[in-house]
Amino acid sequence: MARSFSFQINKTDGKARTGVIHTARGDIRTPAFMPVGTAATVKAMMPESVRATGADILLGNTYHLMLRPGADRMERLGGLHKFMNWDRPILTDSGGFQVMSLNDLRKLTEDGVTFKSHVDGSTHHLTPEISMEIQRKLGSDIVMCFDECTPYPATEAQAAESMRRSMRWAARSRDAFGDRPDHALFGIQQGSVFADQREESAEALRALDFDGYAIGGLAVGEGQAAMFDVLDYAPGQLPDQKPRYLMGVGKPDDIVGAVMRGVDMFDCVLPSRSGRTGQAQTRMGAINIKNARHRDDARPLDVACTCPTCQNYSRAYLHHVFKAQEIICSMLMTWHNLHYYQELMSGLRQAISEGTLSEFANSFHEARALGDISEIT
Amino acid sequence: MARSFSFQINKTDGKARTGVIHTARGDIRTPAFMPVGTAATVKAMMPESVRATGADILLGNTYHLMLRPGADRMERLGGLHKFMNWDRPILTDSGGFQVMSLNDLRKLTEDGVTFKSHVDGSTHHLTPEISMEIQRKLGSDIVMCFDECTPYPATEAQAAESMRRSMRWAARSRDAFGDRPDHALFGIQQGSVFADQREESAEALRALDFDGYAIGGLAVGEGQAAMFDVLDYAPGQLPDQKPRYLMGVGKPDDIVGAVMRGVDMFDCVLPSRSGRTGQAQTRMGAINIKNARHRDDARPLDVACTCPTCQNYSRAYLHHVFKAQEIICSMLMTWHNLHYYQELMSGLRQAISEGTLSEFANSFHEARALGDISEIT
Repeated sequence: MARSFSFQINKTDGKARTGVIHTARGDIRTPAFMPVGTAATVKAMMPESVRATGADILLGNTYHLMLRPGADRMERLGGLHKFMNWDRPILTDSGGFQVMSLNDLRKLTEDGVTFKSHVDGSTHHLTPEISMEIQRKLGSDIVMCFDECTPYPATEAQAAESMRRSMRWAARSRDAFGDRPDHALFGIQQGSVFADQREESAEALRALDFDGYAIGGLAVGEGQAAMFDVLDYAPGQLPDQKPRYLMGVGKPDDIVGAVMRGVDMFDCVLPSRSGRTGQAQTRMGAINIKNARHRDDARPLDVACTCPTCQNYSRAYLHHVFKAQEIICSMLMTWHNLHYYQELMSGLRQAISEGTLSEFANSFHEARALGDISEIT
Repeated sequence: MARSFSFQINKTDGKARTGVIHTARGDIRTPAFMPVGTAATVKAMMPESVRATGADILLGNTYHLMLRPGADRMERLGGLHKFMNWDRPILTDSGGFQVMSLNDLRKLTEDGVTFKSHVDGSTHHLTPEISMEIQRKLGSDIVMCFDECTPYPATEAQAAESMRRSMRWAARSRDAFGDRPDHALFGIQQGSVFADQREESAEALRALDFDGYAIGGLAVGEGQAAMFDVLDYAPGQLPDQKPRYLMGVGKPDDIVGAVMRGVDMFDCVLPSRSGRTGQAQTRMGAINIKNARHRDDARPLDVACTCPTCQNYSRAYLHHVFKAQEIICSMLMTWHNLHYYQELMSGLRQAISEGTLSEFANSFHEARALGDISEIT
């Protein structure tokens, strides 16, 4: 059967690429940022508002959704898209990352992971096969292999053991996923910060012929410099003609650096989570709206921003509703931050199209350097 | 100078009236329900969404706004409308109701009330003159006289003393308000449940010639029957050609009964507050979305409702996001409830226009009686 999933690269600039991922539920412009909708909602946002920021795809969390409302219930109710009122593409993670981070509450074997729910303490089991089944029930458009996100730091031996198990799980995920023409399966490269292990992992994944390839095990405490060191070579180890997805990244400057190193897809809770704690992401860097110096400031977060928050509300208003703990603070700050991220992605796509990515990156860094000064004075 | 504020009655049906209040900031269709925007936000709603429910006017709370962000700051920032991004009419209460309810934290004299802020414990003073000044700084379109909401129950002597002080404060409010052609001042009738005191209060207010008249001191614990007893005569004591506003009311059936007794305006936190605690107001009565029987229910809150919540989300979804304590639950439930209230007002206006208010009221009560049965089974 013909696959509705495909990746078309329209233009490259250095290692960076811009293009379109075609899916049965619509196109995803790359480089793409995927807002995180953990529990079937991008927190504090209506889905039509998320779309209005320019998002083409959301990320859902298998771990959270399998526990509540549950995969069988979700399937009976018609799947995640209908449930949360988002008819465009959804990528789901495998549950592996959250399960591993439960530490004392989980037990890892070759078969998979047994863990206790953070919701009600009940015992659950996740394996490559079960994760594929759950992601199918959710109705995910892009399914992720079940893997272990290798902790950082890890010794070479620990990293290799973890990576090789993840590669065996990748093969089991591939088998369990089967042939689903309207759905895609991505493999996940591991290997920590070790180039030879990253190559071994990439080779194992390439042999399984996935629809796309994630770079896993980064943004877990190694810092931007170490992450960029890996990104200097890891994307090149993965097939050129398939999308590359850097999981859980990141801050705006992480994204710019990763795009320049050949990454096509990103997800991160930062714009929504930091919005809820009063931090706005802007061209000039981050602004903490809870700071008292904003209370009489009639200016928007960013005079050049076209989001509804900046068009209609002053920093004084945002400061007020933050202090008063009003829900609209989370709504407006999240909207601004997601808009900022999507504008950043749009700018990156345009710069790659025009062959001006270096200039774009320079301007990006200069604006933030100036912003740092204005925030101090 | 010509006043931009006027009230036009288009049709009556029994004691009920439907018409339009014209203001410098736009028309208010009556009978009107005013959503409450306590701290410069209708909680969990964007103002454009509040407007989309059909609201023509919001209520703002002088007490909360004078404490945070403060009246002088609000004036410097261009007033409440600009601050909260709502360019249509706003009615502000006088602060009296909230201040009186502080109990141990306030001291009442003939001059006014001294009280401690619930935000930071600082001491403040409110008098008729100060309340008028604050409401002017906020930019309120409909200003309320500073009064005491007589507690319930009260002896005849207590009620009379309280009412007469409020009438002296009404005269001081009238003087302090002065001549502001684009702004209206409403008097507030007191007198508890005593018909002769209500008449004495109405007479005092009529002599001061207000732009509209509120019925105060109800919905404070006396119950619907006692409230309706007062509403059987109180509206008729107030000028026919001016809007009548029943403060702090109420439940849907309170509103229907009050409209039939000649009331034109209402405000209440019920639709927004109950939405945030998981209670939906519908034609069939209230639905508690936290109830486990909703967790597999693919139906909307009300199949006949045209609000975005009912058009796009199942009870199962609302139950899920309630349990997961997601902000979107408050957003969707509040939107539905405010939509329901505005649809109720629209239905009342249409029924009065068509001379079918009794039939409307009968259908209203029948649907709720049926709803009670369906909720049990």
